[in-house]
Amino acid sequence: MSAADAGFMARALQLARNGFYTADPNPRVGCVLVKDGQILAEGWHAQAGQAHAEVDALAKLADPALARGATAYVSLEPCSHHGRTGPCCEALVAAGIRRVVAAMQDPNPLVAGNGLRKMRDAGVEVSCGLLRADAEQLNRGFIKRMLSGLPFVRSKLAMSLDGRTALANGASQWISSEQARQDVQKFRAESSAIVTGIDTVLADDPSLNARVDFAVKQPVRVVLDSHLRMPLNAGMLQLPGETWVIACHEDHAKQMRLRDAGCKVWTVDSRMGRVDLNAAFKLLARQQINTVWVEAGASLNGALLQTELVDEWLLYVAPCILGDSARGLFRFPELHRMEDKVKLELLDSRQIGPDLRLRYRPRRA
Amino acid sequence: MSAADAGFMARALQLARNGFYTADPNPRVGCVLVKDGQILAEGWHAQAGQAHAEVDALAKLADPALARGATAYVSLEPCSHHGRTGPCCEALVAAGIRRVVAAMQDPNPLVAGNGLRKMRDAGVEVSCGLLRADAEQLNRGFIKRMLSGLPFVRSKLAMSLDGRTALANGASQWISSEQARQDVQKFRAESSAIVTGIDTVLADDPSLNARVDFAVKQPVRVVLDSHLRMPLNAGMLQLPGETWVIACHEDHAKQMRLRDAGCKVWTVDSRMGRVDLNAAFKLLARQQINTVWVEAGASLNGALLQTELVDEWLLYVAPCILGDSARGLFRFPELHRMEDKVKLELLDSRQIGPDLRLRYRPRRA
Repeated sequence: MSAADAGFMARALQLARNGFYTADPNPRVGCVLVKDGQILAEGWHAQAGQAHAEVDALAKLADPALARGATAYVSLEPCSHHGRTGPCCEALVAAGIRRVVAAMQDPNPLVAGNGLRKMRDAGVEVSCGLLRADAEQLNRGFIKRMLSGLPFVRSKLAMSLDGRTALANGASQWISSEQARQDVQKFRAESSAIVTGIDTVLADDPSLNARVDFAVKQPVRVVLDSHLRMPLNAGMLQLPGETWVIACHEDHAKQMRLRDAGCKVWTVDSRMGRVDLNAAFKLLARQQINTVWVEAGASLNGALLQTELVDEWLLYVAPCILGDSARGLFRFPELHRMEDKVKLELLDSRQIGPDLRLRYRPRRA
Repeated sequence: MSAADAGFMARALQLARNGFYTADPNPRVGCVLVKDGQILAEGWHAQAGQAHAEVDALAKLADPALARGATAYVSLEPCSHHGRTGPCCEALVAAGIRRVVAAMQDPNPLVAGNGLRKMRDAGVEVSCGLLRADAEQLNRGFIKRMLSGLPFVRSKLAMSLDGRTALANGASQWISSEQARQDVQKFRAESSAIVTGIDTVLADDPSLNARVDFAVKQPVRVVLDSHLRMPLNAGMLQLPGETWVIACHEDHAKQMRLRDAGCKVWTVDSRMGRVDLNAAFKLLARQQINTVWVEAGASLNGALLQTELVDEWLLYVAPCILGDSARGLFRFPELHRMEDKVKLELLDSRQIGPDLRLRYRPRRA
């Protein structure tokens, strides 16, 4: 691979980001068509139902004949299945593309490499792996869902410097700054779903939508609600977009009323009388939820901490102290030995206005 | 001032740092003697009782006559009083120095500018203020003590990510990493005193000395101990260096026993039955304590948070979670309104091994 190859692939990755907030549940993909060191056309996947990146780039050629003998740089292996737009690998071959450079294979174990092989069989020079780490970073949720049947999960908490989320009386507005709250909106916008617990809904009646000034596929709102306590007049039910309630106890009359109010209601297995979190997140993945953004209270976060479901913890740390009587971040049974502490690993820290944003991942033994 | 002047002053500041861990209670001062753009000699103040920086530099000249017509760069106004070494301003004049560049005046309001004026009266070309901010940074404790009669105070806390210092049962070893604990030793070493509360002494029997592999003037250990509960067999009493106990209740027999065990015992005013913190810190300043390093528990830190005594809060944040049942950082009466939160301002954050070190200062209204 040459430096020029890397440059064109970097451009394909940049184009893929055009679909960052809209391509879901599909992966973000970009494509560049190049001949004699010149870019002929650029494409990306904007949203489900529209052209894949390769087809988009081919359609943008000034003249279809230009593709003959060109190289296609794609940030993900071209598809080989008949979906809404026909297999991209066939489109590239038909257009006369001579060489294809892909950043990574399709993560779906059932198709991984099929698109590449079909093109190779048709006489195209094919290579794969250039800037793979960057390509993987772009579609962490899609990849994790394909490989594990679970979404990529981030949980966000906002705390005072002494680890408190609210005063003892429940007052909590606002711990973090306007800048931090804006930052959160962008994470919401890139997520497939925002998950919270019923306690948060009952206490705060949150909107859980992405309030941003650019085009976005709104995330699904998901309420974990073991006993179907979801109020029929919850504010989020008046907003555009979907609200899903996941329960573990059946109550057909309440389910019916919630459905009438516009909710989807799911029932999963219970664990200690509560929604089994593994079952709930597997359900989400089956419903094509790639990435989950959790905004929840101390109970749900404490429970999540004891699973392996969360990939990243994001903590916004405000420069203030609330004191020992204020409410904490994680509720779980008392630890008796320091060795039992929950271990994390710092990924990065960044100042957001007056606050700090700390990003951690679990440290698994 | 020229770039060359700034360069020589930067060197003087660097030399001052040679006394960083030893000059206390005197300020850290450096001096460079320059003629025709060449450094003739360099000096610094190493420790109380030894030469001041200017006299040290003059003594290092290959030939005393070289000083004639030279420029002296000093990081602090040369002294004008007869101390253990005689006034430096007279020594510079006697040596034939033609020009003196000082970074800052002596902060003592009684002497500020006297040394400079005496040299100016003697015909020396004098200027002051070059790299002043850096010079002030070097002696924050000395300056604050001179200007306000209080020491410069930093309080250090080590916490889990969720703001906990120990499990409910008291277990706390070790929350922070070996690297963080090493970092703490350097802060101890640069402090005039390490302050803790009697509860910490009774619970942990800490050594409170600076364990470093370079020369250091050991800080005084100070225990705030309202009711003279200090154990006569406390570990710190077996260590070299001084231990001071500050009480607010008299108990002559116990005071006598503590003095026999090697303590100095002070009595200050009480406030709500406890040591008045303002009185205690004023006492420390009167005893030439420039900088205080607090390592204390939730009660003393909670009380300090409600004074204006602390200049900086240093928090070592370990990448672990202890949960809501674990012990918090700051004990003080419950807040009822978010507007009453204690406001701080982030100064910097830095990764120390696996931990984060956050540095805040109070945000005063």
